[in-house]
Amino acid sequence: MQHPRRYAILGTGALGGFYGARLCRAGCDVHFLVHSDFEHVRQHGLVVDSKDGDFVLPRVQAYRDVRDMPVCDVAAVALKATHNHLLPSLLPPVLAEGGVVLLMQNGLGGEAEAARAAPGHAVLAALCFLCSNKVGPGHICHSDYGAVRFAQYSADGAAAGISESMRAMAQDFAAAGIEVDLLDDLLLARWQKLVWNVPMSGLSVVLDTNTGALMTDSHTRALAEDIMREVMAGARSCGRHIDDGFAQKMLDMTLAMKPYRASMKVDFDAHRAMEVEAIYGNPLRAAQQAGARMPLVETLYRQLKFLDARNRGI
Amino acid sequence: MQHPRRYAILGTGALGGFYGARLCRAGCDVHFLVHSDFEHVRQHGLVVDSKDGDFVLPRVQAYRDVRDMPVCDVAAVALKATHNHLLPSLLPPVLAEGGVVLLMQNGLGGEAEAARAAPGHAVLAALCFLCSNKVGPGHICHSDYGAVRFAQYSADGAAAGISESMRAMAQDFAAAGIEVDLLDDLLLARWQKLVWNVPMSGLSVVLDTNTGALMTDSHTRALAEDIMREVMAGARSCGRHIDDGFAQKMLDMTLAMKPYRASMKVDFDAHRAMEVEAIYGNPLRAAQQAGARMPLVETLYRQLKFLDARNRGI
Repeated sequence: MQHPRRYAILGTGALGGFYGARLCRAGCDVHFLVHSDFEHVRQHGLVVDSKDGDFVLPRVQAYRDVRDMPVCDVAAVALKATHNHLLPSLLPPVLAEGGVVLLMQNGLGGEAEAARAAPGHAVLAALCFLCSNKVGPGHICHSDYGAVRFAQYSADGAAAGISESMRAMAQDFAAAGIEVDLLDDLLLARWQKLVWNVPMSGLSVVLDTNTGALMTDSHTRALAEDIMREVMAGARSCGRHIDDGFAQKMLDMTLAMKPYRASMKVDFDAHRAMEVEAIYGNPLRAAQQAGARMPLVETLYRQLKFLDARNRGI
Repeated sequence: MQHPRRYAILGTGALGGFYGARLCRAGCDVHFLVHSDFEHVRQHGLVVDSKDGDFVLPRVQAYRDVRDMPVCDVAAVALKATHNHLLPSLLPPVLAEGGVVLLMQNGLGGEAEAARAAPGHAVLAALCFLCSNKVGPGHICHSDYGAVRFAQYSADGAAAGISESMRAMAQDFAAAGIEVDLLDDLLLARWQKLVWNVPMSGLSVVLDTNTGALMTDSHTRALAEDIMREVMAGARSCGRHIDDGFAQKMLDMTLAMKPYRASMKVDFDAHRAMEVEAIYGNPLRAAQQAGARMPLVETLYRQLKFLDARNRGI
């Protein structure tokens, strides 16, 4: 392409705000859909405190409504999966002909929802390994990591290989100083990410704690490891093999990182809906359809469903 | 016996205070070991608000130290299992020759500890189905149930039948208006009680709730049922068969009863040690020695160990 690639960032929170600001700083043409912080971001732009270097974007292209946005080459979905019912109204207006959806979410099943909402458009996933929190309106604190793994969605769930648009987008991210990785098998990548997410997010909420405390206590560390191995068995039931050493690698990584308040815990503390179905319900159903049970994951699922309902008064 | 049977109540809390007061009112010679409320109980006696009728015992025989107590026919252990390390100093001074220990605790393993602490004395168990809380010094509120099931401990774990001292004690309790039941197999009775206790106590603490909310929410109700069935499988591994319908009976009973704050939750809220080893650790180890795993029980165990340590700053 001659012109810089045009991105719509749908959801300018801890994740969308961070990657969008980095792409913007690197010269991409980035348009931000902003919900609660709209007035503030329109007037003051975005502030990113980052372990890679703080920066400010005093002016950004901010919108309150997708119908005001230009059509874009990439519609990056950085909403929580709990808002995916909005995709049919959000995606079509912002997608240029040949534009692609880039789903930046956790859990399983989001790509299928995006594909249904944007028929005729390719759907890619960006699996983000990012520790970042929104600390104020338009103000993001990036504490650790940041790498992104790209993979292509296919309706039949088979490995879809590495497409041209994946490479192009990865170049933008790499130019923005983001570590990128291109994967040929989305489902494998999703299950690998669940290996960490399922124990750490759920236990953080249920036990009102952070990753550091979970790893320090021998009982919760052993529980996290057992849950990781159960998720790996769930992946296997769906035809995705994850090496046995992967669990240990995730544990070591978590031990090494700064104690982190998982994003599910952040949502819970703010009395927002948690991504329980995306991270727990959908993997449980996928494994179940493949004939596998994940009783520890199901236990967390049920505990989280109870807490989520009470937390939001439903 | 000619004289009324003499009871030492070791631990005058929600449970020991309630049964002790009832025995006392019915004419037994009851001596109370009182810890934190000693001065108050010595001056004001015991107050029992009960669904069976409120009553006051303005004067009771209260002691701060077992060495001041007379020797008794029955040493009723109504301490939490977390205090069983005290039994070697508490039991010998209060047991008359031929006196028996009556263990009024939850979980597994307490009888063996009592037997080691009082060599030469028979150990009986009283499994208490009681909803009661201490609401103030020497002030007990009995909200529901109250039945007691007696069973005899044997060192080899086999069913020990129904002894004479069991019958005698059961008569005292019955005379005090307590519903009693005599069982020939302690281990079966213990596992049956665990079927209710394991899900309800642990989930109440982990999810910061009561039995009513656990039963109302479909996810936690299903989780409680799965845990019940796992405990029943654990019992089976130890040679104790519990009918399949027992879980449903426990669920129905819990649905029917007033929402109850489990005693483990009361302990947790007061930052006291929880009976995690008695109710979770010992059954897990017993099942494991018999070759059975209880992964959901183990999950609760690990969650509770984490919360217990943090709750008491250890």
